[in-house]
Amino acid sequence: MINIGLLGFGTVGTGIFKILESRQEQLKRITGESISIKRILVKNLHKKRDVEINLDIITDNFDDILTDKDITIIIEVTGDLEDSYNYITESLKAGKHVVTANKKVASRYFEEFTDLADKMGLAFLYEGCVGGGIPVIKPLKEQLALNEIIEVKGILNGTCNYILTRMEEGLEYSEALKIAQQLGFAELDPADDVKGIDTRRKLRILGTLALQGRIQEEDILLRGISSIKAVDIDYIKRINSTVRLIGEIRSYEDGYTAIVEPVIVSQDSPFYSVCYEKNAIFLKGDNVGDLIFYGSGAGMLPTGNAVLEDVIDIITGSYRNGNLLGTRKLKNLNSNIKGEYYLRISKSCNDIANIMESIAKEILCRDECVVIMTRSMLLEDITNLLKAMEIKEEEYFLARRGE
Amino acid sequence: MINIGLLGFGTVGTGIFKILESRQEQLKRITGESISIKRILVKNLHKKRDVEINLDIITDNFDDILTDKDITIIIEVTGDLEDSYNYITESLKAGKHVVTANKKVASRYFEEFTDLADKMGLAFLYEGCVGGGIPVIKPLKEQLALNEIIEVKGILNGTCNYILTRMEEGLEYSEALKIAQQLGFAELDPADDVKGIDTRRKLRILGTLALQGRIQEEDILLRGISSIKAVDIDYIKRINSTVRLIGEIRSYEDGYTAIVEPVIVSQDSPFYSVCYEKNAIFLKGDNVGDLIFYGSGAGMLPTGNAVLEDVIDIITGSYRNGNLLGTRKLKNLNSNIKGEYYLRISKSCNDIANIMESIAKEILCRDECVVIMTRSMLLEDITNLLKAMEIKEEEYFLARRGE
Repeated sequence: MINIGLLGFGTVGTGIFKILESRQEQLKRITGESISIKRILVKNLHKKRDVEINLDIITDNFDDILTDKDITIIIEVTGDLEDSYNYITESLKAGKHVVTANKKVASRYFEEFTDLADKMGLAFLYEGCVGGGIPVIKPLKEQLALNEIIEVKGILNGTCNYILTRMEEGLEYSEALKIAQQLGFAELDPADDVKGIDTRRKLRILGTLALQGRIQEEDILLRGISSIKAVDIDYIKRINSTVRLIGEIRSYEDGYTAIVEPVIVSQDSPFYSVCYEKNAIFLKGDNVGDLIFYGSGAGMLPTGNAVLEDVIDIITGSYRNGNLLGTRKLKNLNSNIKGEYYLRISKSCNDIANIMESIAKEILCRDECVVIMTRSMLLEDITNLLKAMEIKEEEYFLARRGE
Repeated sequence: MINIGLLGFGTVGTGIFKILESRQEQLKRITGESISIKRILVKNLHKKRDVEINLDIITDNFDDILTDKDITIIIEVTGDLEDSYNYITESLKAGKHVVTANKKVASRYFEEFTDLADKMGLAFLYEGCVGGGIPVIKPLKEQLALNEIIEVKGILNGTCNYILTRMEEGLEYSEALKIAQQLGFAELDPADDVKGIDTRRKLRILGTLALQGRIQEEDILLRGISSIKAVDIDYIKRINSTVRLIGEIRSYEDGYTAIVEPVIVSQDSPFYSVCYEKNAIFLKGDNVGDLIFYGSGAGMLPTGNAVLEDVIDIITGSYRNGNLLGTRKLKNLNSNIKGEYYLRISKSCNDIANIMESIAKEILCRDECVVIMTRSMLLEDITNLLKAMEIKEEEYFLARRGE
């Protein structure tokens, strides 16, 4: 019998509980073990739950779980940052394996958790942190033995992708966001999602693994989608393309670039058909070539499924153990990032129009707002120009034209 | 030191050799072992090779490898059927793990090899048999513990996909095939590829795993792409769509359907952007939801990479052992397959035109040839009709309109 301590009983926690209940027989057959959630840590003991559970297993005291010698695996799905840091470190120190779907804490303390687990000879696994139900962390780790990873990029946030897809269908940003909130895809405060912060956390984890050297959140340039308008979608549709929020890390001989930004993707791009809350992650290895992994980027059952895949790997001993983080010193080359960009500025005056003309390959509109496709140029030069013109973040939308 | 016996030294064998040479250090770090190819079985000892090898390790006598006690892992990449059957069974009986990328033999003797390996407590792994470099067999096996797989489908043959993509660019079938042959994508006798036989082998492996019951090659309906013409591509482009050869198995409460056929995919389909020699495999699980795996469907390094991933799993003991084939008795429901179809018949007479009109939702052409979009109807009814009209296979092209 494998006893699990489950920390957090929100959407993902409930998904884990439901899947475990329904797959006992198959899990027994494949792992040779019965798997049981022995205790669940919650904030509010008296909250009404969607699923029927024995109230005896619920606790609001983490020590009940930490000191329970029968519990050998901790699943951490609280979603918070400070408490969960303590839960994870204490659990590992107490000799318990840890699986988490909490990207906030996994990104912040990635090296620390990995090192601690390695020191203790335990697993720290986090498949559910990136791409929801999509198996991508494990395949990425597996490719590392045989490949130099040259590039990793993806649509990593279901909320943004849902909003962008609904805008393609004709909604304004605020309408699409509202529906996403009603459906539970977006939080009441959507900043983490729409500003790209959540995407950046996932990219930081992917990039650190892929490039075998530490890439932290602050090493990644960031532009979200909160300033996009229906008019942008309209202009971009005219070139048979659409917009996706993409996090991308590329390796070069002398360093790397890392950015989260809106990208214009054409019908020929594999990202074009990634719609609604779906995610997709692209990897390029020097031997395996291009790989893309696509699936549900969020949701109760897909993310619960990813967490439980990690649990099975612990029980069967089939996870890659040892510390898989590399020690390469990587040089940040973000100031080299360049491309052709779509740029819309929501106000117009002679000065702005003139400056914009000077960098335009094509001018799409110059009346109330200015809309251009730029020549190939450094991103830094564009953002400096916008600063010099005193144009605020919410007054413009900038998206790179993808390959 | 892990000693490998490599059977076959063609494209994939050479890829394996090259990758192993270049990744020794990383493999040592991750597996804790040095990996060496101790012997290579070839047909012709004196053939000139692309890579420099110590001629002492080459042999044309399988017994040299079978009786070598140091060799614990056999990699079988001969591509043939009868000899390789003996190689694989003899190797397993002699206590050696087997990894193969030979889909011909893996499909034909799938249950036998799996059972034998299980009985011997050894690995029989075959990631390289399906989807070239794409990791799909292992992720599929991993999903089985937590999911009922409802559907598995994919673009599984790089040659067909290459031909179809080049036809989109304006070539006739025969021209595209010729280029594919010149580039080494297609064999001199391309029948296995263009008639869908190769796709069917891969689908049989995927389907048997996914549905946990035996689905053999003869349980799968088969139509290839050898009768397609440029005119078909033109008509299909008009509805913003293209053609892909897709193998698909669906599970129903009372059985399953299994077919390899040309499918019309629209711009919104994830298969639309799968071009040239790329492959993509779609899985639907009841918990994980939709998953798609995309990558290089063939090639020296990608397929070599897939084979070596299996080898690493054997060395690290991280493959799912035990027999993962289910024992479900599955009822074939292929006579229920229905849909809307694109149908072009390369000759016209009053009789044919009249019959075609009776099943058409839309008539696209009725002159020298007849081209229609059918109403939703049973595939069986269409093929019966074609038989009754005495229209030969090479005289028509039939493609289902995808969702």
